[in-house]
Amino acid sequence: METEVLLYEGKAKKLFKKPDSKELRVEYLDQATALNGQKKDAIQGKGALNNQITSILFQLLAQEGIQSHFIKIISKHEQLIEMVDMIPLEVVVRNVAAGSFSKRLGIEEGTTLPQPIVEFYYKDDALDDPFINDDHIAYLGLATEAERQQLRTLALTVNRALQHIFAQIDIRLIDFKIEIGKTAQGHLLLADEISPDTCRLWDMATNNHLDKDIYRRDLGDILPVYQEVYNRLEKEFSSCI
Amino acid sequence: METEVLLYEGKAKKLFKKPDSKELRVEYLDQATALNGQKKDAIQGKGALNNQITSILFQLLAQEGIQSHFIKIISKHEQLIEMVDMIPLEVVVRNVAAGSFSKRLGIEEGTTLPQPIVEFYYKDDALDDPFINDDHIAYLGLATEAERQQLRTLALTVNRALQHIFAQIDIRLIDFKIEIGKTAQGHLLLADEISPDTCRLWDMATNNHLDKDIYRRDLGDILPVYQEVYNRLEKEFSSCI
Repeated sequence: METEVLLYEGKAKKLFKKPDSKELRVEYLDQATALNGQKKDAIQGKGALNNQITSILFQLLAQEGIQSHFIKIISKHEQLIEMVDMIPLEVVVRNVAAGSFSKRLGIEEGTTLPQPIVEFYYKDDALDDPFINDDHIAYLGLATEAERQQLRTLALTVNRALQHIFAQIDIRLIDFKIEIGKTAQGHLLLADEISPDTCRLWDMATNNHLDKDIYRRDLGDILPVYQEVYNRLEKEFSSCI
Repeated sequence: METEVLLYEGKAKKLFKKPDSKELRVEYLDQATALNGQKKDAIQGKGALNNQITSILFQLLAQEGIQSHFIKIISKHEQLIEMVDMIPLEVVVRNVAAGSFSKRLGIEEGTTLPQPIVEFYYKDDALDDPFINDDHIAYLGLATEAERQQLRTLALTVNRALQHIFAQIDIRLIDFKIEIGKTAQGHLLLADEISPDTCRLWDMATNNHLDKDIYRRDLGDILPVYQEVYNRLEKEFSSCI
């Protein structure tokens, strides 16, 4: 049997690789972090919930024609993914003002945006993932002009699909971030995860946070909230995937 | 004689208007501020130097076909300008990494950029003039897509002209910000000021700062430095304008 090596350990996931394999095993960790790692806690069960939520969402997106690196779920806290070359960008799409957007522009949280707004952040822990513009992306060589346009289009396509998915379980998609990888053939592929760690999700009836803001803002325990998102997804969509 | 009214008082200038006139009198103040006004000092003679430097530069730019709101200098610390509707954007052009760009992207100050980089900042004191992207400009209604492209083109044109002007007096133009107004006819017109308050200027031989970084970073007195910039401009160009 081939020996796996730890390829990468992030704040929320570990990636393992077998020699000569183009597939990676992802282990979702029971860990929550915020403020670029300054706040950090072990939360039993969070990894399994995010793995299961991400797995459902990637499968639903695939049904809408949006390919991702996801291959299959292999246990509650593990999935198998295709190895891609990650682009060091976080692409954020916003439908409603919240978080850093509200602070930056002085727009009250909860204000609906007439058009989705796309933002790029440079994935660099040492620099605290700075917000950047198109000229910065070109200067840093993070993406070509054509790739940047593709990233934007992909992010907006994912947005429409996720809005539709979440609306069916009475959740409003406020904003989210995605990360994207390049295959050996140079194709862009949705990667990383889509979970309450990476999306702002508000309950449609109550506007209650069903996402990591519960942890960032010390509003309570995130586990029941992440469980609620998973339960709604599982109830609505388990028969479709 | 018509009575003038104070139309606007900023950190570095006062604007006065006579009723029914489309011209404004600008008084440059003997005041230096930094860190969004947190640092503030009276500096005798600074207003006159910035007024005279700006007046020379706007005249030289006009000779290159770049129109501004400048009409004429009327005293050492006053000039007459055309009234325009200011666009609440600061357009920054960078030729060499410095300041917030270096901090944001982790690029050593002094690194030459292969292409000039353009950045937009939302002029809003309460928000600390945040760095914004194209989607933010559209959302805030600060400029149409076409206007934003025009602003970018104008900023890059000003950059080439200023680089050429400063090179003739052994000064390297590191970066600068401009502000732009709209005439009643909807034309974009270079406005505000161009001075060591709004440009990073390094001596070509020594790399010494000849700009507001002297004040921002507590490197010494700015008056002799601003005087040096004025003297070089005056010596080289007074016969041309």
